[in-house]
Formats: sequence, C-alpha cells, structure tokens
Amino acid sequence: MQNFTVSSDGFGAGADQTLERPFGHADPGELFAWAFATASWPGRTDPGGSRGIDDHLTRDFTHNIGAEIMGRNKFGPQRGPWPDLEWRGWWGDEPPFHTPVFVLTHHDRPSFTLGDTTFHFVGGEPAAILDRARQAAGGKDVRLGGGASVVRQFLDADLVDTLHVAVAPVTLGSGTRLWESPDELRDRFHLDVVPSPSGVVHHLFWRR
Amino acid sequence: MQNFTVSSDGFGAGADQTLERPFGHADPGELFAWAFATASWPGRTDPGGSRGIDDHLTRDFTHNIGAEIMGRNKFGPQRGPWPDLEWRGWWGDEPPFHTPVFVLTHHDRPSFTLGDTTFHFVGGEPAAILDRARQAAGGKDVRLGGGASVVRQFLDADLVDTLHVAVAPVTLGSGTRLWESPDELRDRFHLDVVPSPSGVVHHLFWRR
Repeated sequence: MQNFTVSSDGFGAGADQTLERPFGHADPGELFAWAFATASWPGRTDPGGSRGIDDHLTRDFTHNIGAEIMGRNKFGPQRGPWPDLEWRGWWGDEPPFHTPVFVLTHHDRPSFTLGDTTFHFVGGEPAAILDRARQAAGGKDVRLGGGASVVRQFLDADLVDTLHVAVAPVTLGSGTRLWESPDELRDRFHLDVVPSPSGVVHHLFWRR
Repeated sequence: MQNFTVSSDGFGAGADQTLERPFGHADPGELFAWAFATASWPGRTDPGGSRGIDDHLTRDFTHNIGAEIMGRNKFGPQRGPWPDLEWRGWWGDEPPFHTPVFVLTHHDRPSFTLGDTTFHFVGGEPAAILDRARQAAGGKDVRLGGGASVVRQFLDADLVDTLHVAVAPVTLGSGTRLWESPDELRDRFHLDVVPSPSGVVHHLFWRR
C-alpha cells in the first residue's frame, strides 16, 4: 500500500461519489496537492515538479509492483450489477498501472485490457484475491490501491506488510474512513511519522 | 547522488584511509547505522530490517540506475600508479552495483568484470566522464557514488541534478569534507530537510 492519501480526520474520500466527483465532496486538487506537485506523479504531463521527499514516495509507485488490487469505487461510480461494459475506469486509454489490476466486486464482468493494464473483476475473500494477484505479479509486490474500505478489509484480515499513508492538511468531516487515528495500527505495525515540507505527514507502517 | 552519508560536521569519511579502515578513523558501523538497519540495504544478508523512511531511501539505490561514477578512494586504498591488478574493490565477487562503474583515476588500468558489474578506469574532466557514463547507462540515471571529493568536483562543475545526503548523528572532526553546511547549496538547489526517527537527517536537494 503506497501513497494512499487521507484527510487529517482520517477519510480517504469524501461522501457522495459521482461520475463528476470521484472523491465525492473532497477536492482531489487539495487532497493530493502534495503528490501532483512531484516530478514522478504518474499523471504528470509537463516536465518539472519537485524532487524532494514527496517525490521519493510517488517515484516508488511502480517500483517492483506486479499487480494491483483496488475497490470497485476506485474503478468507477457505479453500484450493483454493471449497467453496461462501456465504463473502463477513470484513466482514459493509458491507465497508469501497467500491470494486472484486480477490481473487487460481487458482480461478474469479463476482463479487458487497456494499454498495458488488464482489469480483472473478482469477488471472494481477501486472502484468495491476494493469492490470485500474487500469482499474476510473478514474484513482484502486490499494491493495494484503495479506497479506504478495501485497505480496512485487508488490514482486518492481516494481509498487509507495509502501508504508506500520506495525511494531508485538509479536513473532510465525512466520507470513507480509513481510521480514527494512525495509532490504531501501532500494536501490529512499526510506524515512522515523517513530516514533509509540503505540509503532508507521511506515515510509514511495517509489520512487527 | 543517493544515500551519501556525512557526519554532522560535514565529513564523508574520516582521515587516514587504509585497507583495514576504508573510512579512515570513522566507524562505518556508526556512520551508516541508519542504512544497515534497513530491509533494502544492498549488503543485507539476513531477512528483516526496517521498512520505514530510511528504507524508502536505501530501496532507491538501484532504481532506474544505469551506471555509477566513483572516486578512486571509494574503489580502494591505493594511491598513485596501480601497484598490481589484484585489487578488485572492497566488495568481493558480487559487487552491489550491477551496472558499469567508472572509477576516476589519473592512472591507466584495464576494465574488468566482477559478477554483473564492470569497472572502467577513467581520467579527464567531469563533464566528459559523465558523458561516457550516460552512454553506458542506456537512458537510465547515472549515480554519483562518492566519496565527498568526487561529489564536490561534480557539484563545482554544476553536473548534479539531485543529491540525497544523510547527515548522521556522529562527529568526525577531520577527514574528507563534503561541506561546512548544507545551506551552501541553497542558491542552486531546492532542499527538503527530513528528520528520520532513526536519528539521521535526510537532505534532499534538487536543482532550481
């Protein structure tokens, strides 16, 4: 789990996700300002960007990653059975993942490939999904891509080795909650708390 | 330039390098304690190690690196013409570089390969050496591997894009100096100062 950003009150996204507002009432420009400013942000189209500590962390995004697991709400705003197969994610024709991506859903849908990313739609227990992603990753690491409820599921099943959460200087009040406080994880994880000059505070957890 | 460690008074190595003491009077176990403790330290032989901010930085060691430039004193304790060709570096049969390495020396010596690292011995101006290393790197980045006097030469020639220096909580008093203070570089570089819970303070510079 890397570069997962939450508000200072612990929300990974705001309430009321829609097609127009993937993060609900949260302003992604504000929540992810720290990442968008870096040279290595995968969505960067112009040259430039910072090369400091925030960049070291965004640069790690693809490093030794062989697969991603993401929640359905990260993939799209639909709920329930897939209305059609037109929706292929928020990312256009070249999604930034470049690996197999396993989208958690109770509703069947055929796999498809966009650029060099292949999306699979899978249900079941977190441990079984992680096994499938591990096989697809071919010895590399599996990234848990969020949102917050997927991270919670995998934390609750004790399937997370490392976790990087960036706490942004933004308050949301409601939405999808990751935690009340990072201290909740201290019994199971070591924690480095690293304030960045950008105002975000990086929280790096690794299993005890 | 990554993971270059200096003492709090600015020295990259102590005085009086010998075969037995590659860092002179400095104790590498003390100077590099922060790095040796990490899971990704290239010299690690046992499992385990920390996975926090220090590890994020050591993990970057091989990331997108296609060649290294190092000073002669990083390669060995000899001075002047090569007494013989027996000496092949401090690193045994599997040096941790896994790329071409360009060793700065005024004294000719044939290239040789150890594991998947090839050492070349080169003289001349920093800009010309960087050109050769860039060609060898095949589009990847060139790491400036130190010691301090090589870093100074490349800084003075304005050939450094980014610089990561870890300032260790150790005083040396004498040796090979990188700087009097990191502030010397602020006119040419942005600087993120990032204290790690391990006691080391990471300094991340990138060109203005």
